[in-house]
Amino acid sequence: MRVLIIGATGLLGKEIVRLLSPNHQVIGASRHGPDLSVDLTDKASIVSMYQQLGTVDAVICAAGAAKFAPLESLTDEDFAFSLANKLMGQVNLVRCSVGHVTQGGSLTLTSGILAQHPMAGSAAVSIVNAGVEAFGRSAALELKGKARVNVVSPGWVSETLAAMGQARSAGVPAAAVALAYRRSLVEDITGEVIQVAKW
Amino acid sequence: MRVLIIGATGLLGKEIVRLLSPNHQVIGASRHGPDLSVDLTDKASIVSMYQQLGTVDAVICAAGAAKFAPLESLTDEDFAFSLANKLMGQVNLVRCSVGHVTQGGSLTLTSGILAQHPMAGSAAVSIVNAGVEAFGRSAALELKGKARVNVVSPGWVSETLAAMGQARSAGVPAAAVALAYRRSLVEDITGEVIQVAKW
Repeated sequence: MRVLIIGATGLLGKEIVRLLSPNHQVIGASRHGPDLSVDLTDKASIVSMYQQLGTVDAVICAAGAAKFAPLESLTDEDFAFSLANKLMGQVNLVRCSVGHVTQGGSLTLTSGILAQHPMAGSAAVSIVNAGVEAFGRSAALELKGKARVNVVSPGWVSETLAAMGQARSAGVPAAAVALAYRRSLVEDITGEVIQVAKW
Repeated sequence: MRVLIIGATGLLGKEIVRLLSPNHQVIGASRHGPDLSVDLTDKASIVSMYQQLGTVDAVICAAGAAKFAPLESLTDEDFAFSLANKLMGQVNLVRCSVGHVTQGGSLTLTSGILAQHPMAGSAAVSIVNAGVEAFGRSAALELKGKARVNVVSPGWVSETLAAMGQARSAGVPAAAVALAYRRSLVEDITGEVIQVAKW
C-alpha cells in the first residue's frame, strides 16, 4: 500500500515508518520533510500536500501538539494553540483526505490516555484528545464505504518517560505503540479507539 | 444556596430554575436576562457578569450551541463556531468562576449523548461534547478543595424530539434531566459525567 505518515520524524512516527517500510510504500511528511512538508495547523498546507501527492491508500497521523500546564496558568492562547494543532489539525486532515484516499482506505489519528484519564496539568490536552476520539468515531460513521477512520490512544511512552527522568518500564515502548497503527492499517476495522496502555 | 443558572431561558434551563427556585436563591442568566446577561462566547462578558454578581455557591450552565450537519458540509466556520460556543464558552466559564464560587461550591456543565454515541451529522457536536466531558474531569482534579466540577450529559430530550416531529416517548422529559443538575448541586460529587438517558 501507499501510506502517508504525518509526523514521520517524531518519536512514534519513526517507529511507524520503520515498522511499515518493509511491506509498504511509505511517504513521510512533517513540518520539514523527509518526503513532503506539511503544517497541520494550516489547512491550505494540507490541501497543497495532497495536490503534490495525489492518491494514497492510507494516512497515519502521529503529529499534533497540545499545551500541558496547570489549569490556572493555561492562557487563552494555550487553549487556542491546542485546539488548532492536535485537534483541528487532525480534523482538517480527515476532511482534506476525502477524495485522496482509495475506497475503503484507512485514516488513523492519534489521541492519548489523558482523554479518559486526566491528571493535573492535562486540561487542554484532555479536551483535545477526547475531541479527536469523538471525531474519529463520528467521521467513521459518515465516511463508511469511502474510508475507515480509527484513533490510536497511546498511554505513556517509555522513551518519553525516560526523557523526563522517569522509569522507562512504566510506559510502552514506541515500537510497541507502532503496532497499534499497523492494526488500524491492515485490519478491517473502523470507528475504533485503539488503546495502547502498559501491558 | 445562591445559584447562578446560565441558559436560564432555555428548554433545560427553565426546568432547572423551576426545580431549584423553591429551595435556593436562583439567579438566571442568558444572552438576554432574565436577571443577568452573558454571552458565553465572549470571555469579557463572563468577567463582567461576575463583576456584577460577586460570589455564588454554585453555577449551572445549560447553554452552548454546536453545529449539527453532515461532515462533508460542515465548514471551517461551523467548527470554529462550535468550539467557541459550547466548548470554550463552558471552559472559560469555569476558568472565570474560580474566585467567584464559595469554597467547595459546585460548577455544572452540559455535554450530551453524542459525545459517546455519535450519529451521522454529529461530528462537530461530538467533538464539543466529548471535550466538555474531558475538561470537566480534568478541571475537577485541579480545582479540588476550591470547587466541585461535574458534567450533565443529557440524552435526547422529549420536548426536542416532539419539536422535531418524533416520538416524545423516545426521550427524557426536560424536567427529569433537571434532576441530574440538582444531583451535581447537592451531592458531594466531583469529576463525574452524569448520564441522563431514557430510563
